Amino acid sequence: MTKEPPKNSRKKTKQLLLNLQENICEGLEAIDGQEKFHEESWIRPEGGGGRSRVLKNGNVFEQAGVNFSEVHGKRLPESIISQRPEAKGHEWFATGTSMVLHPNNPFIPTVHLNYRYFEAGPVWWFGGGADLTPFYPFLSDAKHFHKTHLEACNKINNNLHKVFKPWCDEYFYLKHRQESRGIGGIFYDYQDGSGNIYKGDNKNGNANKISNMIGNLNLEWDDLYQLAENCGNAFLPAYIPIIQKRMNYSFTKAERDFQLYRRGRYVEFNLVWDRGTIFGLQTNGRTESILMSLPPLAKWEYGFKAKENSREELLTKIFTKPQDWINDKDLEKICKEKNIFD
Amino acid sequence: MTKEPPKNSRKKTKQLLLNLQENICEGLEAIDGQEKFHEESWIRPEGGGGRSRVLKNGNVFEQAGVNFSEVHGKRLPESIISQRPEAKGHEWFATGTSMVLHPNNPFIPTVHLNYRYFEAGPVWWFGGGADLTPFYPFLSDAKHFHKTHLEACNKINNNLHKVFKPWCDEYFYLKHRQESRGIGGIFYDYQDGSGNIYKGDNKNGNANKISNMIGNLNLEWDDLYQLAENCGNAFLPAYIPIIQKRMNYSFTKAERDFQLYRRGRYVEFNLVWDRGTIFGLQTNGRTESILMSLPPLAKWEYGFKAKENSREELLTKIFTKPQDWINDKDLEKICKEKNIFD
Repeated sequence: MTKEPPKNSRKKTKQLLLNLQENICEGLEAIDGQEKFHEESWIRPEGGGGRSRVLKNGNVFEQAGVNFSEVHGKRLPESIISQRPEAKGHEWFATGTSMVLHPNNPFIPTVHLNYRYFEAGPVWWFGGGADLTPFYPFLSDAKHFHKTHLEACNKINNNLHKVFKPWCDEYFYLKHRQESRGIGGIFYDYQDGSGNIYKGDNKNGNANKISNMIGNLNLEWDDLYQLAENCGNAFLPAYIPIIQKRMNYSFTKAERDFQLYRRGRYVEFNLVWDRGTIFGLQTNGRTESILMSLPPLAKWEYGFKAKENSREELLTKIFTKPQDWINDKDLEKICKEKNIFD
Repeated sequence: MTKEPPKNSRKKTKQLLLNLQENICEGLEAIDGQEKFHEESWIRPEGGGGRSRVLKNGNVFEQAGVNFSEVHGKRLPESIISQRPEAKGHEWFATGTSMVLHPNNPFIPTVHLNYRYFEAGPVWWFGGGADLTPFYPFLSDAKHFHKTHLEACNKINNNLHKVFKPWCDEYFYLKHRQESRGIGGIFYDYQDGSGNIYKGDNKNGNANKISNMIGNLNLEWDDLYQLAENCGNAFLPAYIPIIQKRMNYSFTKAERDFQLYRRGRYVEFNLVWDRGTIFGLQTNGRTESILMSLPPLAKWEYGFKAKENSREELLTKIFTKPQDWINDKDLEKICKEKNIFD
């Protein structure tokens, strides 16, 4: 059994996620230096609403979308009730901030972030994460992104990252391509403080195995709130230094084309495999806000094959497979040899 | 109960669909006048294989993909068995030709065609259809496309088109956009000669209502084979005249951008709603052949709104809603007034 959330849980999480949207947008505007976010507030007829922010055609970002929403309702859809029968008959509340950034420069990775909180009667949980999708990757960028999130998790408990990192690899996987979406990051869901921290559906995956080994961490509501805050606040320090390092790289039309081609994979993941996107589209969510994650421009090419030993081949050989980005010394050696370390 | 198919049913349908691929590719190469199809044959480890043909960067076609496949296996997936329990325990056979064309010129519509045949023990059926997705539509093109398919259906039975036309409207519908994919055409599935011809899952739809009114048409295997042949052969006469009429239209960058934006909807339909695509991707189909339907280039733009009374607005006001393209006189009047009749 999980404990009850604090009395002001809804107000508190809503404010956390509004602040997160605010801080992220401020940080992104500062680094873009050219364009500003445009805001659109919307109301959900069934209850609640949101605040969508988009920055287009910037100096760094071709498109940056950061959404906040806070929605509530009387009845949950059957698909959720069947997973969480205790929520039946209760009114529900959900709030979240989600973000996808599509930079102009193919040397700057695309990135996604989402933190969310849910309540229905006795049921509550936190979920979230952030993951990086490079086109022309450097190992040092992957290391930095992962380390920053590792440290954010460690402030709560040293065991969290061991589960959230493989969980991310398992969630952001394109089965039909046999590829990871990118180099991952962290992902967690259904964190309600009860039992093991892995609460996904891949019983054979590493995240589940490691979670079983670790056992119950006895996280409280406040720990999980703090986790969301730490990880959310880790995003700018995890990503901005990568932009700063790569934003002045020049690139060719071929490199731009490859970026557009790989953006096709991003579309495929979001529309075919991402539970949140599909659920939103099939249940009358706000389509424009949900699909803000899709790239402004994308390419498909039948039978595309990267040239042998090319930079493009290294992406799929190394950077769309789960790796121990922080500690693997062999990987470091290979990337140094190939001049894609730093 | 359905009758048994003829002894040579597999050979005959395979040949029909190979010929269809052949004829279509010939016709498309002739009108393109610049590029040829490149062929790739592939083998499916579990049984069967296919012949994928792609034409890229042509004069008319930015990309044209025409796939033939003939696959067989020992066991059907549970999802099909649950719908057709009589097929259980039988080896199965499926053959099909499918096509998606993405023209360069935004005044030439994108178009899709698929004809297929399935067998497993006592179970067999035909399915198929073709549908048109214009960006800058003309009513006369919609009329011509529909009339040509109507006539092909009428050669078998005058009642078929009354069901296949609304069935197409209901299938190619983007619920999350509240839009039809385009102006439709015909669509049918599970045609096994038994009972009413509507065998879809929209019990409230027009296709079902009309099918119930018409009742059993007592179609035999040979009729349905002939139907596939007639409709397949109707494709070039339905589409080529539209190309001829529009291929020399000049277009602006804004019109090209709008085409790319609308192609995003094509991606959304195929990845979110198309049963065949999703089933293929989730069950280890040949990804490159399945996703040949996706456009070579597509755009998304948050919050795009067409200008009032613009040509772009007319697309969503008139041409992404089900209409009686052939007979509606009011529609004709409106399109003449707006200069989008011919």
